[in-house]
Amino acid sequence: MKEYNVAVCGATGVVGREMLKVLEERDFPIKKLLPLASERSIGKEIEFKGRKIKVELLEPDVFSDIDYALFSAGSSVSLEIAPEAAKRGAVVIDNSSAFRMDDEVPLVVPEVNPEDAFRHKGIIANPNCSTIQMVVVLKPIHDNFKIKRVVVSTYQSVSGWGKEAVDQLWKEMAKIAESGETKVDLENRVLPSQIAFNLFPHIDTFSENGYTKEELKMVNETNKIMHGDLSVTATCVRVPILISHSEAINIELEKKADPDAIRELLSNAPGVKVIDDVSNNSYPMPLYAAGSDDTFVGRIRKDSTVESGIWLWVVSDNLKKGAALNAVQIAELLAQKSC
Amino acid sequence: MKEYNVAVCGATGVVGREMLKVLEERDFPIKKLLPLASERSIGKEIEFKGRKIKVELLEPDVFSDIDYALFSAGSSVSLEIAPEAAKRGAVVIDNSSAFRMDDEVPLVVPEVNPEDAFRHKGIIANPNCSTIQMVVVLKPIHDNFKIKRVVVSTYQSVSGWGKEAVDQLWKEMAKIAESGETKVDLENRVLPSQIAFNLFPHIDTFSENGYTKEELKMVNETNKIMHGDLSVTATCVRVPILISHSEAINIELEKKADPDAIRELLSNAPGVKVIDDVSNNSYPMPLYAAGSDDTFVGRIRKDSTVESGIWLWVVSDNLKKGAALNAVQIAELLAQKSC
Repeated sequence: MKEYNVAVCGATGVVGREMLKVLEERDFPIKKLLPLASERSIGKEIEFKGRKIKVELLEPDVFSDIDYALFSAGSSVSLEIAPEAAKRGAVVIDNSSAFRMDDEVPLVVPEVNPEDAFRHKGIIANPNCSTIQMVVVLKPIHDNFKIKRVVVSTYQSVSGWGKEAVDQLWKEMAKIAESGETKVDLENRVLPSQIAFNLFPHIDTFSENGYTKEELKMVNETNKIMHGDLSVTATCVRVPILISHSEAINIELEKKADPDAIRELLSNAPGVKVIDDVSNNSYPMPLYAAGSDDTFVGRIRKDSTVESGIWLWVVSDNLKKGAALNAVQIAELLAQKSC
Repeated sequence: MKEYNVAVCGATGVVGREMLKVLEERDFPIKKLLPLASERSIGKEIEFKGRKIKVELLEPDVFSDIDYALFSAGSSVSLEIAPEAAKRGAVVIDNSSAFRMDDEVPLVVPEVNPEDAFRHKGIIANPNCSTIQMVVVLKPIHDNFKIKRVVVSTYQSVSGWGKEAVDQLWKEMAKIAESGETKVDLENRVLPSQIAFNLFPHIDTFSENGYTKEELKMVNETNKIMHGDLSVTATCVRVPILISHSEAINIELEKKADPDAIRELLSNAPGVKVIDDVSNNSYPMPLYAAGSDDTFVGRIRKDSTVESGIWLWVVSDNLKKGAALNAVQIAELLAQKSC
């Protein structure tokens, strides 16, 4: 079996670490692993398959012998370095939003549009976490019942922001537990407000039209991935959860569909696991989805306010399928083809 | 000014305590205050206007000289005792779901359908918390732009369940902070799962059609209060928040409406406060809505996936406007009329 030189850029961040874990878990055929980061992290080590590997400086020239470069170091780093890596022959799989809506760059979820991965010109974009778990579920439904409109509200964990937001929630929890106060002050808050005992409808920055960029990603990326003209509208909310995003998705369909048909369809969909037995209080929950590869769906039920309507409750680990796993799956697609 | 004998039934519960607080805050004209509870709470005292008052046993005969009896002791108690109280001349304002959909019992939100309060036959029902804060906002919009369809997803605090759920969240937080583990085991869990670092689409019990009773309340109660035939569909979710429910509400309107018109309209609506300046990260949040009488609205924006669509983000203290305050406001309505 062919083996590859793989770079992980942003190797010390929450997604970078998850990428290393997923590469190890899935036994991706690696010849050389190169963990890369900014100056700040130089000297650090990461663990991979029981070995300690020094983190090296992320700069253009390190990519000359790299086959796959998984980027998760933020948009500005991707914009600067990813084209340089591609120029040097690496295929970049970029987890930032930098290239996602670029017409020259495929945006890929392997269960949905694997064929797009092969049209790359050196860079492939990994979609936004909240988009990935939604399209994995929407795709089989759209293929079979044609989606007219999607109204989605999200419940997104702090790890989607990054390590500092995870730290913020832990520190706030500790202060609350210690003081018995519900409102606590932190010196180094990275989220726009206290998140413990709180939530806010604000993820990423606001655009002119009043939507956040996160909400617009769910609209635009979904259509790019599904090559569709789907009406999607979203409200994205940050909740005091560490890992896993949840989504309440209301779907209006062209064709009649009953919940049983949707349940059956999703039970056989790749990457999807149905947990839907409300008589036994069985439905997906973020605390228990964390660490899993699957996108979990439950609360599948008819919405009778439209001719053919369905509600779904979709939960997935935002660091795994929402980021690291999806990126590694893209590399696997390319590697399989190159065998 | 006329003064009244007021009983608070379930005076030691989270809503009962809040009722006492609201009666005091609003200086409701009280001659005699009678805090009532089940046998279990006898011997306890409550504080009211600086005085300690002994909790007495909730039984039919105590109501013979009561003008207003505010009930919040659960459906089975209401079903048994409320008709007895009414028979003895008290006007019952019942916070349970026992009588809400009873054709003989008005279901009242003073800002929405005050006139219904006067059609009572001894019992008036206080709507469900998540319904109240929604209809306060929907009413002016429906009057002006006619609502076709509402798709709502909720983010509901644990105090909506009651005191034991609040205790559960606090205990889980303490265990998490102490152990550093994300999953903790509690002996006396009342919610269907751990709620700290978690959430679940499950409030009240499930019905045959896959909806929870909470979700059906939002549909049925909204239509009863608004005397409408509105298409409403909901997903209700419990989140790790102590107080205040949040709602992402997507509304399809008959008439064209832009966000500015809705913002203007809601700024002048009774009981509503608009917090909507996203350029300054200003939007309602549950942690900061707790303790307020108002229903807060923000993130008012156009949804272009339908001809006339609007998104709203609505937050309110579920113990205040969602329960205690609304009940006291109903008593005030009746008291004003009887002056």
